[in-house]
Amino acid sequence: MSDKPIVVLVNPQLGQNIGKAARAMLNFGLTEMRLVAPRDGWPNPEAGPAASGADIVLDQAKVYDTTAEALADVSLVFASTVRRRELKTPVVGPEDMAREIHANEGKSAILFGPERSGLTGEDVNLAQRIVTVPINPEFGSLNLAQAVILLAYEWSRQAGDDLAQPTMKDEEPRAPMGELNALIDHLDGALDQRGYFFPEDRAEATRTTIRTILTKPGWSSREIGALFGIVKTLEKPPKG
Amino acid sequence: MSDKPIVVLVNPQLGQNIGKAARAMLNFGLTEMRLVAPRDGWPNPEAGPAASGADIVLDQAKVYDTTAEALADVSLVFASTVRRRELKTPVVGPEDMAREIHANEGKSAILFGPERSGLTGEDVNLAQRIVTVPINPEFGSLNLAQAVILLAYEWSRQAGDDLAQPTMKDEEPRAPMGELNALIDHLDGALDQRGYFFPEDRAEATRTTIRTILTKPGWSSREIGALFGIVKTLEKPPKG
Repeated sequence: MSDKPIVVLVNPQLGQNIGKAARAMLNFGLTEMRLVAPRDGWPNPEAGPAASGADIVLDQAKVYDTTAEALADVSLVFASTVRRRELKTPVVGPEDMAREIHANEGKSAILFGPERSGLTGEDVNLAQRIVTVPINPEFGSLNLAQAVILLAYEWSRQAGDDLAQPTMKDEEPRAPMGELNALIDHLDGALDQRGYFFPEDRAEATRTTIRTILTKPGWSSREIGALFGIVKTLEKPPKG
Repeated sequence: MSDKPIVVLVNPQLGQNIGKAARAMLNFGLTEMRLVAPRDGWPNPEAGPAASGADIVLDQAKVYDTTAEALADVSLVFASTVRRRELKTPVVGPEDMAREIHANEGKSAILFGPERSGLTGEDVNLAQRIVTVPINPEFGSLNLAQAVILLAYEWSRQAGDDLAQPTMKDEEPRAPMGELNALIDHLDGALDQRGYFFPEDRAEATRTTIRTILTKPGWSSREIGALFGIVKTLEKPPKG
């Protein structure tokens, strides 16, 4: 099991955005944040309210003077930025990033630049990879917290069992075929009494259609019970 | 190639959040937004500035009185919400959602509830699936725009692989929701005439059960047509 990636915010400007980034991280189980020379110092009173309860991330955040110091114990670094022609750093998408982080035995980190200007070329050069979220080329407008949440999601998506994966386990089990067959037989009798299977030479195809329609859902015993009640009700004459 | 999913915001409260959702959508190429009874009316002057340039989404947004009307031409509906024990709707994660949307030949939609309260059970019952982003069980705190951006990202992530995806081409496309609703309405009337919804205080729960049972299969137009015929036949008295 690899370490969770560290989120490194380089020169973040608004405390609010630091809080939002913490919230984005914790949604996907990331807890280690490092701050490089935050513009307004640290702690920042605006960060807490924006974190919506992700205080543990803020409380444990460590502050560094330089990006290089923040990365000293990290073995794999991704710089989150758009592709930059002048830089030779290889560019990967979020999926490859997550794959490499999961494969890395040491610590991994993702660098994010200041809100307005993004990472400097110098900071990008500290990374082995640039990671770029593939967005609409005609409308690219990801803010800091959005970039954090998408990369955290992708990491978590590939992490597997750690988080509460939605499963369909709790769904009711399909009823045994015998119950469905009883419903179909009953329906067949009720329809037959009302001349539904006419003309004769279409009867078999019609019966196949009904069976297919009613088999497709994979209803539970409870659902088949309810449908029995519905069919039997329809067979009665209307009241009054 | 499947249609892009429609984003349906049910009773959105703040115009700002509608704008942020539009921005989140357009980052991943989604452009069709539908609004069900937005609290502060529409257009909302606060939406534009928050959209950061995603005006095309807001300008084309359509407004509906009810969720059912907003879904009338949609054949595959996902309700974005946390798992709800009381609801029987199957729960999937973002990846399965995206896979199903890409395989669906008709229109698909993702429903999002009001910021504070989320979707009502009644609205969830209009969906074939609940989609839940698997988040940290000890800290789940996704806001509206974050839920939108994560699901839009996942859709877009899989959009590249259309050709590689196994397709369900041979299966008939799901009928638009309007057709299913017409069947449910007709059935409801026929059952009501026969005193099915008794006692009164159970009627709502019974109607929910019927809707859930009939929504689950994702029947085609042809299948719904056949079921109409079956229900109408059962309503007749038996012959001779």
